[in-house]
Amino acid sequence: MSTQTENIAAAQTKQIISQILTTWHSNTKRVTAFFNKYEDDFYLQEVAPGRSRAIYLLGHLAGSSDGLLSLFGISEKLYPQLEKLFLTSPDKAFDEYPSMAELREYWEKVNSILADHFSKMQPEDWLSRHTKVSEEDFAKEPHRNKLNVLISRATHISYHVGQLVFLEKKEPAF
Amino acid sequence: MSTQTENIAAAQTKQIISQILTTWHSNTKRVTAFFNKYEDDFYLQEVAPGRSRAIYLLGHLAGSSDGLLSLFGISEKLYPQLEKLFLTSPDKAFDEYPSMAELREYWEKVNSILADHFSKMQPEDWLSRHTKVSEEDFAKEPHRNKLNVLISRATHISYHVGQLVFLEKKEPAF
Repeated sequence: MSTQTENIAAAQTKQIISQILTTWHSNTKRVTAFFNKYEDDFYLQEVAPGRSRAIYLLGHLAGSSDGLLSLFGISEKLYPQLEKLFLTSPDKAFDEYPSMAELREYWEKVNSILADHFSKMQPEDWLSRHTKVSEEDFAKEPHRNKLNVLISRATHISYHVGQLVFLEKKEPAF
Repeated sequence: MSTQTENIAAAQTKQIISQILTTWHSNTKRVTAFFNKYEDDFYLQEVAPGRSRAIYLLGHLAGSSDGLLSLFGISEKLYPQLEKLFLTSPDKAFDEYPSMAELREYWEKVNSILADHFSKMQPEDWLSRHTKVSEEDFAKEPHRNKLNVLISRATHISYHVGQLVFLEKKEPAF
């Protein structure tokens, strides 16, 4: 009986993590589909007057995903140059930006590594601390774990998808 | 030993659900704060040229939250009139809309009932089917549960927050 309850709880935990992971995957795929849909020039448009261009938002999302590699302790960032261009500066702060082809490659490469890593993580890995929180702080704030990072990134992607759709002729239902 | 493992798994499940709930709460609060920040006229602006007005997005989000009452089997919808105005028709399809005062009231009332109900739900409640899926389909697709609805609604809110911020003078960092 006790073992059965234990198994149920463990199965519940796995199922919930899998559901969050599905949300991350589907939001990520939605961005990929959007950026593979049009010619490169299309993405040089601002999503609304005076706001970021779509190409900047792709760099921003790629840089954000790249940061997960170090936050999850998988590896160093693959493209540390994205941070200055897309995470700590607004669009058009620099004269030159990577091309759409480069950014698409970064985005897909980083997400492919993350997806592979995520698929192997166990519940205790998801609930372990990310690399930016100390052991001492984590003892007091156990919600600062990797799963929380994933939830927040899935939400972050959705936030920007809500902006990118303004470039589509019709605003699709979400 | 077995009981300890069981307790750990059950505690993990509760913690994860609590983290998802926190995301929903914080996204909801962000919307509330945005719609309490300016005079009513401010929200009559379109978030981008030719797109929805902020007041419409508040009605849309309130209607979406109202739908959770029936989807979770809590009660009938409190404001069924929101569906036609804000969920199945685009902005400006009708001549008259509820006032900002009314929409703020609907938004806060529905979310207050939801928050109260959510706070009492146990893991097995979160993993039970929502009212729009049949028992038969749920047996085949167990991810069509209430927790999945919550994750998807938290993401949905974030999608529209990404649009609402275009009315702010500076685009805040997310």
